[in-house]
Amino acid sequence: MDKKKILLNDEDIPKYWYNILGDMPTPLSPPLNPATQKPLTADDLKIFPNAIIEQEMTTQKEIPIPDKVREIYSMWRPTPLVRAYGLEKALGTPAKIYYKNESVSPAGSHKPNTAIAQAYYNKIEGVNTLTTETGAGQWGSALALAGSLLDMTIRVYMVKVSYNQKPFRKSMIHLWGAEVFASPSDKTQIGREILKQDPNNPGSLGLAISEAIEDAATHENTNYALGSVLNHVLLHQTVIGLEAKKQLEMVGDYPDVVLAPCGGGSNLGGIGLPFVRDKINGQNVRVVAVEPKSCPTLTKGVFQYDYADVAKMTPLLRMYTLGHNFMPPSIHAGGLRYHGDSPILSQLRKDGLLDAVAYNQTEVFEAGAFFAKTEGIIPAPETCHAIKGAIDEANKAKEEQKEKTILICFSGHGHFDMASYDTFLSGEMSDYEYPEEKVKEALQYLPKID
Amino acid sequence: MDKKKILLNDEDIPKYWYNILGDMPTPLSPPLNPATQKPLTADDLKIFPNAIIEQEMTTQKEIPIPDKVREIYSMWRPTPLVRAYGLEKALGTPAKIYYKNESVSPAGSHKPNTAIAQAYYNKIEGVNTLTTETGAGQWGSALALAGSLLDMTIRVYMVKVSYNQKPFRKSMIHLWGAEVFASPSDKTQIGREILKQDPNNPGSLGLAISEAIEDAATHENTNYALGSVLNHVLLHQTVIGLEAKKQLEMVGDYPDVVLAPCGGGSNLGGIGLPFVRDKINGQNVRVVAVEPKSCPTLTKGVFQYDYADVAKMTPLLRMYTLGHNFMPPSIHAGGLRYHGDSPILSQLRKDGLLDAVAYNQTEVFEAGAFFAKTEGIIPAPETCHAIKGAIDEANKAKEEQKEKTILICFSGHGHFDMASYDTFLSGEMSDYEYPEEKVKEALQYLPKID
Repeated sequence: MDKKKILLNDEDIPKYWYNILGDMPTPLSPPLNPATQKPLTADDLKIFPNAIIEQEMTTQKEIPIPDKVREIYSMWRPTPLVRAYGLEKALGTPAKIYYKNESVSPAGSHKPNTAIAQAYYNKIEGVNTLTTETGAGQWGSALALAGSLLDMTIRVYMVKVSYNQKPFRKSMIHLWGAEVFASPSDKTQIGREILKQDPNNPGSLGLAISEAIEDAATHENTNYALGSVLNHVLLHQTVIGLEAKKQLEMVGDYPDVVLAPCGGGSNLGGIGLPFVRDKINGQNVRVVAVEPKSCPTLTKGVFQYDYADVAKMTPLLRMYTLGHNFMPPSIHAGGLRYHGDSPILSQLRKDGLLDAVAYNQTEVFEAGAFFAKTEGIIPAPETCHAIKGAIDEANKAKEEQKEKTILICFSGHGHFDMASYDTFLSGEMSDYEYPEEKVKEALQYLPKID
Repeated sequence: MDKKKILLNDEDIPKYWYNILGDMPTPLSPPLNPATQKPLTADDLKIFPNAIIEQEMTTQKEIPIPDKVREIYSMWRPTPLVRAYGLEKALGTPAKIYYKNESVSPAGSHKPNTAIAQAYYNKIEGVNTLTTETGAGQWGSALALAGSLLDMTIRVYMVKVSYNQKPFRKSMIHLWGAEVFASPSDKTQIGREILKQDPNNPGSLGLAISEAIEDAATHENTNYALGSVLNHVLLHQTVIGLEAKKQLEMVGDYPDVVLAPCGGGSNLGGIGLPFVRDKINGQNVRVVAVEPKSCPTLTKGVFQYDYADVAKMTPLLRMYTLGHNFMPPSIHAGGLRYHGDSPILSQLRKDGLLDAVAYNQTEVFEAGAFFAKTEGIIPAPETCHAIKGAIDEANKAKEEQKEKTILICFSGHGHFDMASYDTFLSGEMSDYEYPEEKVKEALQYLPKID
């Protein structure tokens, strides 16, 4: 019997996270204070605990993972690396396809890898309450899980339209004992102002961020937590790639190409950065971001300083961006609807160390449905992007009659996205043209810095 | 770091299923033809393939698992055995609690263990179409998965009220390429008759069984598949207990008590029978069925011949029953709403080799929510029953200050049951009194055989 699952034991959970800031050929441009446009100081980041601020800036390459964090990780980590024989056979490809299954976490995605770490560092610094925003609920539920396991108070501001349309992620958040408010809410000044102007405002991620930050800033012993984009988030996610590398070594393999969906960049960074390290050191490997054509930050954006949110409350980050007030179309992969991208991944892209491709959502769902039929497991809409990329790579290998090893990040399951599959299967899913004019317009509002 | 997960590799998937028919102190009473009340012949079972009919009757103790079935199992099997440290600590118990996590299958439950096997045996005997019924959709989705992986046609009759209320299990079935009809449907004679009398008939499991059997009986090359109760179903599920035993051996442990939820008996049989074998051979171990107080077959039923369905189309089985026309209250654990029980488990219960306890649904959900908060993972309502049983055992160990090893079957996740958790968390969940009068009435309609 061919070996499908490559497993590691609890004790094989990495003992450190990999910090690429110590290896990048071009150092990151510093984030800027939005008011002064001067480089941020640690003081500007005081909604985070000291350990996180330190991790955001350090160039130490290996950051030890605290025992308590490894202990909680061991509830589901190391995650399985699975050889997708069913998919390979159905494609008739000479390529080997492996997927790193991050959907086995209790929250169903890779998000808890950083949620647990962030909650832990806050807790040991005496902060017992965290606030955050969430769109469709993947990140909010991951932080609620962390709060439950570390006995902390979590308050989640969930974009109102998702709050009403995706009730079951909200149920998970409740079950893990966290509070969740439809944003705009009456809990914050900015929420109340918006509601006064428009009681039916559907909310947006940018607004939810503003509410969560205000909540943290105006309450004692309360910090804010972010689920993507920032350096420390990608750092925590590198357990994915570190494990995958070890698992491939166990079967004597190494990837030619590593693919992951890319919104803010946390799962791509997680699986990809340990391989980018090898690439910097001369290894022949491609790391590929797969994004939606309707929100093609790395394939169509510009590399400039921009705000991370619509309301311009966050620091300015130098990154690929479509403009902070570009509102992406309502695709089903809600986790990829972000105007910007992680500064780390953006700089790597700029330096030619990261590839990127973009697809339409119907072809992405077609790939995901094909995966479900051949491999059984049902991917989240975000994950379907990586699968589409892998299928294209495998088909190319078939044309060229070349062996090739493909590794993808199976970032999450689709159990809470079945309505999207219904839309796809009914033939009623539509694609969105690349919104060229809207992006052009949004780019006019970029801050003039470089 | 304490070891949380005890893992086996692909090659450790059992090579045989354990057949307790070869070890039972009292042989099973034969199933009877419903028309003649004479013992069934193989001819009466012609909606099943020969290999399954053979497995239903043989007393050979070890039945080899075909390579192809093991190969498909290896997509998710062996499943992890997990030590529930978080739960133990929260309870302050000296007991060790392990859970065998069957929720990692693509369908999210233990059901594919038999779905794959049944589909396989049909396929190699040249039957490429299977029909079945499903209530809330666990079994229907598992058979759809099997059909997808083995390239077979699957038709599922889903109780109409669930078809409308639980749309996402239906979506899974569609995604895996199977057809699903709301029952009563216009696809069968009996469905059309019922619809003619009452176009708004909400359906029932008994009626859906009748439709699926009629569909199989009236189409070429089409067989019927059942997800619980029968001997071959429990046989296929014994991979659960065989793996768990090996995993416990790896850490030098053996259970004092093994608990599983019990409706028709497939997951209890799966985890429990390899331990009942030990008990028959003198080992000190208790195997415990956990059932709902509102449908307490093993704790309040009678041991007699009865029909397996409401419409009296199936063979007569000697089992614990509450009467074939007893309609259990609409509890959230839909998989446990069955008037009868597996003949194997019933005979073991009769012989004192199986214990049983019953709980109300609010205390069961309270246990499940506590598990989710301490262990992260969200249990299905059926699974919550085993958890409640385990918590009571652990609390007893605490009172008695005694070490004890508890093993439970984590039969499925609750990702498609979040609405039930919402009802629980809102305080609006109600318990159902044991319907003593309804059972008394139903028992009057038992066939008079022994």
